Amino acid sequence: METVSTNRAFGGIQGVYRHASRETGTEMTFSVFVPPHAPGAKLPVVWYLSGLTCTHANVTEKGEFRRACAELGLIFVAPDTSPRGEGVADDPDGAWDFGLGAGFYVDATQAPYAAHYRMWSYVTQELPALIADQFPADMDRQSIMGHSMGGHGALTIGLTYPERYRAVSAFAPIVAPGQVPWGEKALGGYLGEDRAAWRKHDAVALIEDGARIDALLVDQGAGDSFLEEQLRPQLLRTACDAAGIDLSLNLREGYDHSYYFISSFMDDHLRWHAARLI
Amino acid sequence: METVSTNRAFGGIQGVYRHASRETGTEMTFSVFVPPHAPGAKLPVVWYLSGLTCTHANVTEKGEFRRACAELGLIFVAPDTSPRGEGVADDPDGAWDFGLGAGFYVDATQAPYAAHYRMWSYVTQELPALIADQFPADMDRQSIMGHSMGGHGALTIGLTYPERYRAVSAFAPIVAPGQVPWGEKALGGYLGEDRAAWRKHDAVALIEDGARIDALLVDQGAGDSFLEEQLRPQLLRTACDAAGIDLSLNLREGYDHSYYFISSFMDDHLRWHAARLI
Repeated sequence: METVSTNRAFGGIQGVYRHASRETGTEMTFSVFVPPHAPGAKLPVVWYLSGLTCTHANVTEKGEFRRACAELGLIFVAPDTSPRGEGVADDPDGAWDFGLGAGFYVDATQAPYAAHYRMWSYVTQELPALIADQFPADMDRQSIMGHSMGGHGALTIGLTYPERYRAVSAFAPIVAPGQVPWGEKALGGYLGEDRAAWRKHDAVALIEDGARIDALLVDQGAGDSFLEEQLRPQLLRTACDAAGIDLSLNLREGYDHSYYFISSFMDDHLRWHAARLI
Repeated sequence: METVSTNRAFGGIQGVYRHASRETGTEMTFSVFVPPHAPGAKLPVVWYLSGLTCTHANVTEKGEFRRACAELGLIFVAPDTSPRGEGVADDPDGAWDFGLGAGFYVDATQAPYAAHYRMWSYVTQELPALIADQFPADMDRQSIMGHSMGGHGALTIGLTYPERYRAVSAFAPIVAPGQVPWGEKALGGYLGEDRAAWRKHDAVALIEDGARIDALLVDQGAGDSFLEEQLRPQLLRTACDAAGIDLSLNLREGYDHSYYFISSFMDDHLRWHAARLI
């Protein structure tokens, strides 16, 4: 692991790191905030998965998570959203909703994407092992959150490993990729046309198929231009109600899909996570 | 005034606006955060002046000021750092410490800069009039802060108009531009070689020449790579001690010159301002 940069912030260290990923076969960059802590302490880890077009940098610069993480004693990890670099296949038309910056947190099975697009295994296996090895992390206390495509990632990962992630939340998540254009394009492109293979990468389908978790927290801007076509949180509401999952779904009047929205409610999410981690 | 963008954040509105400036003879862009407030209320205004290479966008995205401004009821205004656009003279060598992004908050007297580089009058006269006209601002309750070159701007403006700005603070300011390379280049280029003309744009010289203010708050990273050559806060310490100005100078171990530093102490500064504004 190579250190790209470190900056002191809120009494802790905001770092950016790079490593050669076995899963993606590329160099991967990620950021980690380690709050101030006593020597030898092991701290809970909050994973933040970013949305379409983002890298680790968006939330690192604009997420406004460090104050609360410093106060609550949380490590905050932000991976990239796809493999990148020479030889990594992109969208054939260069669209921003597939390929680079749009890995959708799946292990692709379809050529040419299967070679490098292994974000599921990267985020759930390889990077956690690196974090456990390199940072003062208590891997028995992890939680996960994300935004938009990353909200999809957080929900599907959290529903798949409920024993590992003690809290799961999302900002404006894609809750049912199998039923919306972004998801149909991505899951079709990475996993192929057999929709049965999509269901374990679709939060609503996972719940319909029996996945369970105690509680979920979702904030959604009511003024989000993607709300009706791509996000459709009412599908998650229906699935959670049927399954007896305690979903706190906050529709926020006037808020959009941007980091101005995310940063406004980041503190609420981190406190909700901390209550389940500490 | 044209609205470039508005985003709801922390219950208020983060806007970016553009207007044709009479002073600079160019289009100027700035950002304003208006916190949630009762209809008809008039709110105090905090001015934030940015550093070299910045636009309004840096602090708007990375400053982490909105939570405290929403809580305290403060309007936060961030101007650009220079005129921009066709016909605006830049540094002859394209350096980043002079010309575009480096207006140094002076009214230039030297060709070719005098035509557009009028940031002193823009920030102290023209833009306040626009803010008063377009926003729910109580112009009897203003304060000013800034970073690096913008800290220089905040200190010199605050020392020049102590009756207008009820609080003056800075992050890593250039306290004595007449004694450091950045300042010598900028003041020489904009104001000419007569150093007597520089003194009203040099916080330490202003204090030596009799300018007074009750109190100043300065935070400075001890790990700032510009500390010894360009910033030299001990010169402000000496001047304030001789003048009986209550300077709170906090040297912050391990912090650098970045927005990771600024955002870490933004809350402290806003609360210090609010105590003098509300």
